[in-house]
Amino acid sequence: MNAPEPANHRVWDGLRIDGARLWQSLMELARIGATEKGGVCRLALTDLDRQGRDLVVGWARAAGLAVTVDRIGNVFMRRAGRNPELAPVMTGSHIDTQPTGGKFDGNYGVLAGLEVVRTLNDHGIVTEAPLEVAFWTNEEGSRFVPVMMGSGVFAGAFSLEHAYAARDAQGKSVAEELARIDYIGTEEPGRHPVGAYFETHIEQGPVLEDHDTTIGIVEAVLGIRWYDCTVSGMEAHAGPTPMALRRDALQVAAPLMQEVVAIAKRYPPHGRGTVGMVQVHPNSRNVIPGRVKFSIDLRNVSNELLDQMDADVRAYARRLAEESGLAIELEEVSHFSAQPFHAECVAAVGRAASKLGYSSMPAVSGAGHDAVYVARLAPAGMIFIPCKDGISHNEIEDAQPEHISAGCNVLLHAMLERAGVVS
Amino acid sequence: MNAPEPANHRVWDGLRIDGARLWQSLMELARIGATEKGGVCRLALTDLDRQGRDLVVGWARAAGLAVTVDRIGNVFMRRAGRNPELAPVMTGSHIDTQPTGGKFDGNYGVLAGLEVVRTLNDHGIVTEAPLEVAFWTNEEGSRFVPVMMGSGVFAGAFSLEHAYAARDAQGKSVAEELARIDYIGTEEPGRHPVGAYFETHIEQGPVLEDHDTTIGIVEAVLGIRWYDCTVSGMEAHAGPTPMALRRDALQVAAPLMQEVVAIAKRYPPHGRGTVGMVQVHPNSRNVIPGRVKFSIDLRNVSNELLDQMDADVRAYARRLAEESGLAIELEEVSHFSAQPFHAECVAAVGRAASKLGYSSMPAVSGAGHDAVYVARLAPAGMIFIPCKDGISHNEIEDAQPEHISAGCNVLLHAMLERAGVVS
Repeated sequence: MNAPEPANHRVWDGLRIDGARLWQSLMELARIGATEKGGVCRLALTDLDRQGRDLVVGWARAAGLAVTVDRIGNVFMRRAGRNPELAPVMTGSHIDTQPTGGKFDGNYGVLAGLEVVRTLNDHGIVTEAPLEVAFWTNEEGSRFVPVMMGSGVFAGAFSLEHAYAARDAQGKSVAEELARIDYIGTEEPGRHPVGAYFETHIEQGPVLEDHDTTIGIVEAVLGIRWYDCTVSGMEAHAGPTPMALRRDALQVAAPLMQEVVAIAKRYPPHGRGTVGMVQVHPNSRNVIPGRVKFSIDLRNVSNELLDQMDADVRAYARRLAEESGLAIELEEVSHFSAQPFHAECVAAVGRAASKLGYSSMPAVSGAGHDAVYVARLAPAGMIFIPCKDGISHNEIEDAQPEHISAGCNVLLHAMLERAGVVS
Repeated sequence: MNAPEPANHRVWDGLRIDGARLWQSLMELARIGATEKGGVCRLALTDLDRQGRDLVVGWARAAGLAVTVDRIGNVFMRRAGRNPELAPVMTGSHIDTQPTGGKFDGNYGVLAGLEVVRTLNDHGIVTEAPLEVAFWTNEEGSRFVPVMMGSGVFAGAFSLEHAYAARDAQGKSVAEELARIDYIGTEEPGRHPVGAYFETHIEQGPVLEDHDTTIGIVEAVLGIRWYDCTVSGMEAHAGPTPMALRRDALQVAAPLMQEVVAIAKRYPPHGRGTVGMVQVHPNSRNVIPGRVKFSIDLRNVSNELLDQMDADVRAYARRLAEESGLAIELEEVSHFSAQPFHAECVAAVGRAASKLGYSSMPAVSGAGHDAVYVARLAPAGMIFIPCKDGISHNEIEDAQPEHISAGCNVLLHAMLERAGVVS
């Protein structure tokens, strides 16, 4: 902290959260559904989810927060501000996990919010606007689809009825399971006012670690285009068929697979291109492939850039089909818009990191988060911290205590800036 | 037949087989195991195989041939020559089929031999050396491995005991099934003398049809090298992982897959390269592939050329591993030597085609045949005729009657040249 004090220095600029308390809460919540390998399996709307919810709600009540639950089971925990007319400055995330999930994904964002409140309580600080800590139902989508269900219903991305009707592999519905664990509230989703929203999260990628940087100032969530591509040739015996008479689908698919990456690199710094899934037919050692089907995943930070990447891949596929004489079918199977975060929230995160003396860099999120949906309704931003080797959705998911603390301090100061401090 | 008569014109130069009779025999044999789609399913050593064997052996006896069977069930049907001391000029193939096989693969070679004998009988022609028509046990290898079992044991490529011990999916052994269908003979495999061997076969490839040519003068069977190649990178989430931080196994595998074809084209005209099988791990749309395993099939007409292709693929894989930093493992999993046919047999086929006025061209066999093994023991050659669209091992396998006749006429004259005609 050798940075010179700014002219507009305020008393609460010196405020810091209690990193040990936050870590202890994370470890305590992680015991519910703990796996042998050190991870957590706490699927949405299970008994374990209920235990996790009860623990967090209990902590919130102990911290003096008022708890409300909406009809999709989103939980809002409110710390009063001086002016009850102001929309709350909210933070949150989710506490459901993947089947082989870790301790930090989601849980960190919720407990960081709780730690902000506990810290303000410790110091008797009153904010102008109320503060709220939320956790959203079924972010992971492992047990019920769609993913980001609670925040999606909240933002009107899909209806409450659609979410209620989703069933798990055993045929149990979201509506039944919400009622069973007693987290089906009465508030209409989306009616809950939000003045601004911040979400603290592990990065789930390798960039911060690679740059040895503590805070990612998240500017946007990448948009996604998913395609299925099918190249159709003619299967034939690998022995008796000379090269000149072949219609080898794999040999036409291979350059297109490489072009997906070349396109991503043509739209830096956030262009991403992945071929993750390949099916070769008939997939036999001595048969020339007659058909190859593969997935294409294109991502970038704006819909305009994605449109250009889409045009590029279509043009390349068309040219390749003409040159090879093989049919190439390119079908878009899914589409998620890019979501920029609010300039003021992004700036607030950057100012907090700078003031606190943490190394920071602009970042984008390549994966979805509840903040993506909340950003449709209110100014929103995200704070990333590094996770070990960029790994998440894995029992070995890990994060360093000093990064956990740093992200929470950034959250504290961004929320205070946004909410205003009375005393 | 407007070709000028050669100076050494002989009476039997005008001799022709009976194409209608040959076609009728092919269709009659094809009824045993006939499938609804017009193909044949007559797996080795089944009751249907026995019915097929009995039919052919009955025809042979009716044509005055002496039948012997060896211990692996190969059947030899002998027409006496003037000089019983001479080793027989033999022709043959197999009558077992793939599960969804056609009417011509193998069966044509056996029945063409029978038609040669019937034609000689019709005209009372006596040859100097004896003639024999053989069918070899389990060429297809669909029910029992290894493939080309009967000719392989005959040539000493593997032992009789090894073949006897092979079991089908129901656990039945070759020895049991041979005894059950009563085709386990007493002659020691390989002890049967062979003066020369010709095998007539559909091409099972598209070259003759593409060149609108009737007769392929087969000069060699291609050698084969089979490899498993594994590229190991690091699986990671397709969203949060920027291009520069990826270790995408598929993107390193793709150029190597293309190089397999480039290598084949560098060693024309018979170089062949195929990637037929690909497994991507974890094969998920939004996960960067951490590991890609694929097969490589390289073929060429000589072991020297195959050695060069092998060196090329290894060098490319090594360079690619260095450039990418990813591990590339290249393991040879199987190896078949190239097999040139005997110059005199090849020339005899060429002379016969030329004398008969059929269009012809040099050819190679990309697939294995019983002739490959017999060539280890005696001068051998093969005669190819076109098959529709180059397709075989398929119920829609088809061949034109005039090509069926032409190939049999070439066989007749090549065998007569080799055996010598007495009267």
